[in-house]
Amino acid sequence: MSSVMGEQIKLTIFGESHGPSIGVVIDGLPAGIELDQEAIAREMKRRAPGNSKLATPRKESDSVSIESGFFNGRTTGMALCARIPNSNAHSKDYSKMKEIMRPGHGDYPGYVKFHGCNDYRGGGSFSGRLTAPLVFAGAVAKQLLAARGITVGAHVATLAGVRDRKFDPLGETAETLLAMGDETLPVLDPSVREAMAARITEAQKEKDSVGGTIECMAIGLPVGLGEPYFDSVESRLSHALFSVPAVKGIAFGDGFGLAEMRGSEANDPMTYQDGKVVCTTNHNGGVTGGISNGMPLLFTVAVKPTPSIGKTQHTVNVVTGENTTLEVTGRHDPCILPRAVPVIEAVTAWTLLDLSLLAERR
Amino acid sequence: MSSVMGEQIKLTIFGESHGPSIGVVIDGLPAGIELDQEAIAREMKRRAPGNSKLATPRKESDSVSIESGFFNGRTTGMALCARIPNSNAHSKDYSKMKEIMRPGHGDYPGYVKFHGCNDYRGGGSFSGRLTAPLVFAGAVAKQLLAARGITVGAHVATLAGVRDRKFDPLGETAETLLAMGDETLPVLDPSVREAMAARITEAQKEKDSVGGTIECMAIGLPVGLGEPYFDSVESRLSHALFSVPAVKGIAFGDGFGLAEMRGSEANDPMTYQDGKVVCTTNHNGGVTGGISNGMPLLFTVAVKPTPSIGKTQHTVNVVTGENTTLEVTGRHDPCILPRAVPVIEAVTAWTLLDLSLLAERR
Amino acid sequence: MSSVMGEQIKLTIFGESHGPSIGVVIDGLPAGIELDQEAIAREMKRRAPGNSKLATPRKESDSVSIESGFFNGRTTGMALCARIPNSNAHSKDYSKMKEIMRPGHGDYPGYVKFHGCNDYRGGGSFSGRLTAPLVFAGAVAKQLLAARGITVGAHVATLAGVRDRKFDPLGETAETLLAMGDETLPVLDPSVREAMAARITEAQKEKDSVGGTIECMAIGLPVGLGEPYFDSVESRLSHALFSVPAVKGIAFGDGFGLAEMRGSEANDPMTYQDGKVVCTTNHNGGVTGGISNGMPLLFTVAVKPTPSIGKTQHTVNVVTGENTTLEVTGRHDPCILPRAVPVIEAVTAWTLLDLSLLAERR
Amino acid sequence: MSSVMGEQIKLTIFGESHGPSIGVVIDGLPAGIELDQEAIAREMKRRAPGNSKLATPRKESDSVSIESGFFNGRTTGMALCARIPNSNAHSKDYSKMKEIMRPGHGDYPGYVKFHGCNDYRGGGSFSGRLTAPLVFAGAVAKQLLAARGITVGAHVATLAGVRDRKFDPLGETAETLLAMGDETLPVLDPSVREAMAARITEAQKEKDSVGGTIECMAIGLPVGLGEPYFDSVESRLSHALFSVPAVKGIAFGDGFGLAEMRGSEANDPMTYQDGKVVCTTNHNGGVTGGISNGMPLLFTVAVKPTPSIGKTQHTVNVVTGENTTLEVTGRHDPCILPRAVPVIEAVTAWTLLDLSLLAERR
Repeated sequence: MSSVMGEQIKLTIFGESHGPSIGVVIDGLPAGIELDQEAIAREMKRRAPGNSKLATPRKESDSVSIESGFFNGRTTGMALCARIPNSNAHSKDYSKMKEIMRPGHGDYPGYVKFHGCNDYRGGGSFSGRLTAPLVFAGAVAKQLLAARGITVGAHVATLAGVRDRKFDPLGETAETLLAMGDETLPVLDPSVREAMAARITEAQKEKDSVGGTIECMAIGLPVGLGEPYFDSVESRLSHALFSVPAVKGIAFGDGFGLAEMRGSEANDPMTYQDGKVVCTTNHNGGVTGGISNGMPLLFTVAVKPTPSIGKTQHTVNVVTGENTTLEVTGRHDPCILPRAVPVIEAVTAWTLLDLSLLAERR
Repeated sequence: MSSVMGEQIKLTIFGESHGPSIGVVIDGLPAGIELDQEAIAREMKRRAPGNSKLATPRKESDSVSIESGFFNGRTTGMALCARIPNSNAHSKDYSKMKEIMRPGHGDYPGYVKFHGCNDYRGGGSFSGRLTAPLVFAGAVAKQLLAARGITVGAHVATLAGVRDRKFDPLGETAETLLAMGDETLPVLDPSVREAMAARITEAQKEKDSVGGTIECMAIGLPVGLGEPYFDSVESRLSHALFSVPAVKGIAFGDGFGLAEMRGSEANDPMTYQDGKVVCTTNHNGGVTGGISNGMPLLFTVAVKPTPSIGKTQHTVNVVTGENTTLEVTGRHDPCILPRAVPVIEAVTAWTLLDLSLLAERR
Repeated sequence: MSSVMGEQIKLTIFGESHGPSIGVVIDGLPAGIELDQEAIAREMKRRAPGNSKLATPRKESDSVSIESGFFNGRTTGMALCARIPNSNAHSKDYSKMKEIMRPGHGDYPGYVKFHGCNDYRGGGSFSGRLTAPLVFAGAVAKQLLAARGITVGAHVATLAGVRDRKFDPLGETAETLLAMGDETLPVLDPSVREAMAARITEAQKEKDSVGGTIECMAIGLPVGLGEPYFDSVESRLSHALFSVPAVKGIAFGDGFGLAEMRGSEANDPMTYQDGKVVCTTNHNGGVTGGISNGMPLLFTVAVKPTPSIGKTQHTVNVVTGENTTLEVTGRHDPCILPRAVPVIEAVTAWTLLDLSLLAERR
Repeated sequence: MSSVMGEQIKLTIFGESHGPSIGVVIDGLPAGIELDQEAIAREMKRRAPGNSKLATPRKESDSVSIESGFFNGRTTGMALCARIPNSNAHSKDYSKMKEIMRPGHGDYPGYVKFHGCNDYRGGGSFSGRLTAPLVFAGAVAKQLLAARGITVGAHVATLAGVRDRKFDPLGETAETLLAMGDETLPVLDPSVREAMAARITEAQKEKDSVGGTIECMAIGLPVGLGEPYFDSVESRLSHALFSVPAVKGIAFGDGFGLAEMRGSEANDPMTYQDGKVVCTTNHNGGVTGGISNGMPLLFTVAVKPTPSIGKTQHTVNVVTGENTTLEVTGRHDPCILPRAVPVIEAVTAWTLLDLSLLAERR
């Protein structure tokens, strides 16, 4: 496992879905930062299961215990360790997983890689549950970014083919971005919410699952985040975002659409506006040459349908060495997108903070 | 700049497009590896400019001088330094670049980030020229991968809308993958080559440029490369690939297509075949749970059209603080895709080698 | 704070002396390792306070709760998190520390560096208490080293001028090294123990403290650990050992004595013995050119007297900005050496394991 | 080999003693720094061979070619690559080294580790010659430190038993520290120089070599450099300094002397002086709790006698598998200390710069 990430601020995550607890150690935070614990709890709740009919009924309060690095209401400059007990694990649901590999999951490569020793219950450390510590880290990062005038927000752009309107590439208000945090199914156009919910319910009834895309924007970024070559904004964000289970694609700005354009269309013209250089379009998603160019950061990730489904699937039993079939039981999300939105925001916020500290130190 | 990348094997690149030389230091290579220098020269030539009417007429032999780490035909175990002199730089072509920012390039964020001190000639370290050292590193990596039975190959999947056939997701032969190295415009279906070339020529005539997508496959990977969470195969590859200039999107397996599927379609069923576990489809591109699952690794990157175009563009002069227009002169590729194919292969090869050494050490 | 260390295996420590808990996350351990939990408990007890009249009466069981990475008696390959609750903190003892800086401690530079926000109680993260997680990590490392035939042991070489005999530089038996773990005050020559204990008691009576040196040996190392230049055995060990509070010097082999020798005396002659190359002396402490040469690894560290003493000292009150005097109260060790021995062993074991994995991967 | 070091600024060194060139890539330097190239040349010359009767007659100009990262007299913010051609290599002197292992050198562990493939000529990458790139990096670092008011200087404290006076632990002037750069044999008390030189000449005549100690001081450090736990000032400096060949011990402040003191002697009392907190003694060498405390940084390293000597030594021939004797011929320093002084300064300067950037970014 590689559980450490970051340069200026290092995250170390730990935990397995059905072990005693999961958590994160954040190393390198400045001392003296007041943390808004209510804001952290709010972010944790956005991701927590059991909040909605559209998600797994597994009920986890995901209440965070801060073990270190926080004293008298401020960060101490020492490692900030946050621990989240696993309170509602039904390990019996997973007895089959010891032998029968779930298609689309990390079960099989994990079984081979870890010689059958990994904790198979609930997916162990492969579990989406490990994104809870990331949301904690992101909630902390958002507070440090807010002090720099940076706001991050994301919405479900498409869900099983139902499309929300897209972010205006030239920018949204901080209010619009922050409002995404108020809804279980965050969309820009409320009129699509019902259709999306219907697709989830429909899939659930058919013991199946659905996927979609999440669009994320950050505004208020200074010009100059990201380092050519190997720590470009795109490099660092994609590295972090592909750590989120189920993410299978990422595109910055017009992304794959750029591949079909002419240079004269794809290049964003620049002009002075109120003495400041701005682009009049934002096909490049706020990043050129790997560096933030002052326009809103804009990217989209593809999230595959949850692989745990009740429908019969063909697979193998690695203990008996035989082919078999599997209907995954247990409490699974028929669609992970609503709960993935705060995770994508969190990972983005943390990466932008790390890049900010790197750029500021020069 | 962040010029160091890698865990088990660290690459450090250096150089600017119009400085004395560019190069790479490869740290951590095992001792005693024979290097096929002809194979290295062949890879360098694939990327080198001046090989084709479709590319920039800038003529660079890109001959490599090995400064260290190679003795009596074998690696010494010490840092392998390869240096490539810049022999054909026309710096006068770039005099305007000091003041006038090219749209779609890193010029403007670079100017701000580096306080106007970066070498603007030819894009400095932002230049695609810095991919030459990456191709060297990739050529070395390919030889170490070959000894492990791993082959990497890529082709131009689409170019300005003209589509090549796609790789068979269940696998291609090593011969097919290696054959991609024989052509200036590597495609699987030779019948599309002419149409692609026509699009490039057409754009060139119109002082414009075109983009496209590159599909890359690696076969022979063992089960178990990649580390959950933060060094997933997708995380590491995307980090490295977004370091390549002009890459704006990446998708593994069916990528954004997965977002529209049901779980029952996206999950790849598993079965025993000749005593080995295989998937009967490969929608996940050979990676589940962030780890290679034994199926061919398959991904696609979006490459935007070259931003340097002769057409008139609106932009700014950062010295005078005025709006202006720009027609980029100099010797530019109207389409970077043919020369980007070996770069994508190289970066992929190097990343897979790094992940292999990490997985083997356990 | 920098709480992450290591290349092949990364340690992340967290915690403050008087916070809820302290702990460590060990990333990169192979899967399937059985851990002897009794052996771990034994090592923890060696370092734990309250075991001896010679040490602080603060009573901490230092019982370890494993939060992740361990399942069915084996490592899972995931991050191994061990947490140690702080059960016996008397925070009121430290109220003065908020304002009055203890000479010889990190109080003052910590106050400045962390803007007065660090947890001053018990020294916070500067506390020797943070070595408990290191002992846990070392206990795990010792088990992996044992499987490689490597044994580490250390003893109090000098204490307030009382000298134990030195290790035979050509080697000790594993039994001798392991026997150091049986005693509160580990020495090779039991006859010096009483005199050492007397010096501690004497200092304690006089509200003062004493220091000394610890000699450490590792046997069974293969030829070839350590990487020139920057990961030499000496570089990596010293980096890790100077992280242990109170260590102020380190010397390999004859160390500072080598500075007075001629080359003809300092060079260790080599010869074939039973078909194996050995040195007939070991002035270089088992390391030449930064790499283990097959001889026993041998080094000595200087440990300063505990800075917390009851005697009156001149210091400053940073809140009032006035000079003042201080008699440190609370429960302090009059000599840290007995409890430092297992810490030095642990840090050595962990570093050697990290270097072993690096050398084995080639 | 591990040829990459640093966090905020990464050094990558490359080269072998008898290959085409050696060099260094410095990654992470701010843009816009003017470099005083004469000052750099001066530092290079201090270390270069052939400057004195006391050193090897091998004549190397060690002239530096800057390959990248420097444009119009300033750093560009990109990787700064400096290359030093090997102009005066007599490879025939080393033909024996292929088979016969020099005692006290890395030859034997290097032979085993690198399977006999490392470049044995002149010690390859183990060579002290690789310290030339470090001196370049240090010369750059000194210029950035000077802008922060920090000065580094070192002198030969003892040489074969002849003792120079020690630095005043409460501080020396910048003039005194910088004056160390003017002499081939830098000492504080000029009256000892002749006796030291005599010891070197004497050893040389007897085909032997001598060692000694180097004392190093840095003044002007702010309070707060270094990070507890794992990036303490002592950890980072010792890591870097043990990368310098022949260094076998390091002690901060009174070092091993502290082991014999009582706490009441070792603790440095603090007092307000002109509104600033200072210590009235400096037994801890300017570092408490791993962090700079505002007092001068002071440490001593032990340098062993050069292992290459003309006297007959017992050793092995690894090709024939027989015992043999060796008289090392070729051009060797009978004492490395004079040339090691600028190296110790350089490595110290670079480490302090890296720690400064880390502390400043918060």
